[in-house]
Amino acid sequence: MTYSFSDRTNNLKPSAIREIFKYAADPTVVSLSAGNPSPDAFPVKELEEISARLFKENPIALLQYSVTEGYPKLREYLRKYMKEKYDIGSEGDDIIITTGAQQIMDFATKSLVNEGEVIITEAPSFIGSLNSFRAYNAKLVGVEVESDGMNTDKLEEALKANPNTKFIYTIPNFQNPSGVTMSLEKRRKVYELAKKYGVLILEDNPYGDLRYSGEFLPAIKSFDTEGIVIYAGSFSKVISPGMRVAYTIAPQEIIQKMTVCKQGSDVHTNIWSQMVCYEFLTKYDFEAHLEKLRSIYREKAKFCMDLLDEYCAPEITYDKIDGGLFIWCKLPEGVDMPDYVRKAIERKVCVVPGNAFLTDESESSNGFRINFSTPTDEQLEKGIKALGQLIKELV
Amino acid sequence: MTYSFSDRTNNLKPSAIREIFKYAADPTVVSLSAGNPSPDAFPVKELEEISARLFKENPIALLQYSVTEGYPKLREYLRKYMKEKYDIGSEGDDIIITTGAQQIMDFATKSLVNEGEVIITEAPSFIGSLNSFRAYNAKLVGVEVESDGMNTDKLEEALKANPNTKFIYTIPNFQNPSGVTMSLEKRRKVYELAKKYGVLILEDNPYGDLRYSGEFLPAIKSFDTEGIVIYAGSFSKVISPGMRVAYTIAPQEIIQKMTVCKQGSDVHTNIWSQMVCYEFLTKYDFEAHLEKLRSIYREKAKFCMDLLDEYCAPEITYDKIDGGLFIWCKLPEGVDMPDYVRKAIERKVCVVPGNAFLTDESESSNGFRINFSTPTDEQLEKGIKALGQLIKELV
Repeated sequence: MTYSFSDRTNNLKPSAIREIFKYAADPTVVSLSAGNPSPDAFPVKELEEISARLFKENPIALLQYSVTEGYPKLREYLRKYMKEKYDIGSEGDDIIITTGAQQIMDFATKSLVNEGEVIITEAPSFIGSLNSFRAYNAKLVGVEVESDGMNTDKLEEALKANPNTKFIYTIPNFQNPSGVTMSLEKRRKVYELAKKYGVLILEDNPYGDLRYSGEFLPAIKSFDTEGIVIYAGSFSKVISPGMRVAYTIAPQEIIQKMTVCKQGSDVHTNIWSQMVCYEFLTKYDFEAHLEKLRSIYREKAKFCMDLLDEYCAPEITYDKIDGGLFIWCKLPEGVDMPDYVRKAIERKVCVVPGNAFLTDESESSNGFRINFSTPTDEQLEKGIKALGQLIKELV
Repeated sequence: MTYSFSDRTNNLKPSAIREIFKYAADPTVVSLSAGNPSPDAFPVKELEEISARLFKENPIALLQYSVTEGYPKLREYLRKYMKEKYDIGSEGDDIIITTGAQQIMDFATKSLVNEGEVIITEAPSFIGSLNSFRAYNAKLVGVEVESDGMNTDKLEEALKANPNTKFIYTIPNFQNPSGVTMSLEKRRKVYELAKKYGVLILEDNPYGDLRYSGEFLPAIKSFDTEGIVIYAGSFSKVISPGMRVAYTIAPQEIIQKMTVCKQGSDVHTNIWSQMVCYEFLTKYDFEAHLEKLRSIYREKAKFCMDLLDEYCAPEITYDKIDGGLFIWCKLPEGVDMPDYVRKAIERKVCVVPGNAFLTDESESSNGFRINFSTPTDEQLEKGIKALGQLIKELV
């Protein structure tokens, strides 16, 4: 049988990054290519305790079908928490719990974007989201990320050139993969441009709570008086990614459409995990937990940047980061990035080539992404030392 | 802001059944409209025990990111188990774990069906699946269900009339909502017709293990020498729906495409629940558990049918069922079904009107669906007595 697939997915291929992950699975290879939380970062004891207690108190509720919108207590809590803490959410907004934040990208595209319509993204941007968009044959237009976020002049050019733009996708805090945080000025500018050109903003904030230095900046969603921002939050980086619990706060009409999408997709998010998240957020000291995470990642990020300074400077450059899990490294002129990444793999170090994060993977990039949350300190030292030796041999 | 939604979802509305569920949420109403497993059917003690043990043994594995295809041990186990027990799966097939079986309907449609292409379904059929198909603007063509399954002459007519058919969707065992089981002869005929017309079959089997009388019939997938059947299995009815763990066995190429869809949707299914399912299947007596479920539902089904015979005969008729969770009731000529269902709600009994299960909800139906797994015996008696009184008053 020859299978004929839908036009929307016909050209979809497993991401280039999957090829990398094959090498990364080799236990003799140091993988700096993942994006997993540090194993130290999971509140294991607390989650174990909560789950055991819920099994004593109300096991049927953990195991039975639940509602598509999500566990009502969790939704209600998040509504208040996000409003009070971050001024996110208004009267016209609603909230839905999703199976990871990736599902928000899926449903936003499914419900809003026709094939061929445009999504403007940062370039580089998160591969997973780009693939969600591609799976509906959306046209991706990349706008260069500078050290203070998206180039807003180029964003306006892109909006002018693409009147069929549906939304702007941005990760304003500690962007994946660039590590860049968008300035307050640019946040306001992006919001104003979206308003001016009548497009929506999809604001993805998985790392916002992992700021370990510098000053807090408000979410674009907090300016949203017009109902044009879809805000995506997630517990993957701050509780557990394996539990797949995330949420989106967006205008009611959009949430209603996403709810219908969810009814036809996974019906509802694992309710056991939703209930465990709710209990952890409300019966434990979540702020202290976040502080612990920040301290883990602050230390690991510093350790990683010190290693880059020691072994890879001055040939490899990078921008210092204030949060998140990723550092974007730039190779000097004259060094071919794909060749460098291939040679690094031969030396048993795995990083992600920068072109994987572009809207068109065939474009060139002189960057690569490293992650410091997953490897041990020993692995980090070994890997970055090898990256340094390699660049010094090549230059 | 006026939101403009995608063409594919523009006409999607929350299902008519949602309206019903609003009434069903009223605690004074007897709901025969759900499809939840009986609270007695959950292996609470075992799941609690397993989860507690896994937290002692390997908590990070429960909480960390996992692979899109699903927990490798669970996939490997299911591959062998389904082959040995049901002769399902061949060399050319692969398996992926999904977040409930509904997600299989989503990804099958997303990867295979262009807008306007046809999916042939039984009429009536499961609303959830119909809505998954509708969310990609597939054209639905219904084929009448008889007491031994789909009318295969009409199926062939539909295939002839719709050369752009992508797949035939069927629930061969204890179909939702009709309760009907497809005969062996018709299973073979449906397979032959799919082969002849070059279309796929999506075989959905959530209730297969809940046969409490009559003889086992092989799955259509067990005839599949040509690689044309996508088989959907689920633990929702036999372990827990809240955990959202299901699986599909299908030709490798289709699984690969569905895997790319899943990468762009929820990345992977809750790994904690996948691991718990695997341990329950392999370290406990799953067959004894299934036998217990069959005994629970055999008794509840008999109780329900006895009540129908006592209170609703001869005006309301139904086909006896051999498994599953639903009974399809037919009203006598001259009684308006929507009117009857509305009056039943006024008397605090909630059933699902038959037209909700049609490819076109505006068509008429003289049937309604009742579920006996969710209500208590007391509620069943109260509800069916009221249904009987109502019909006797109307005729």
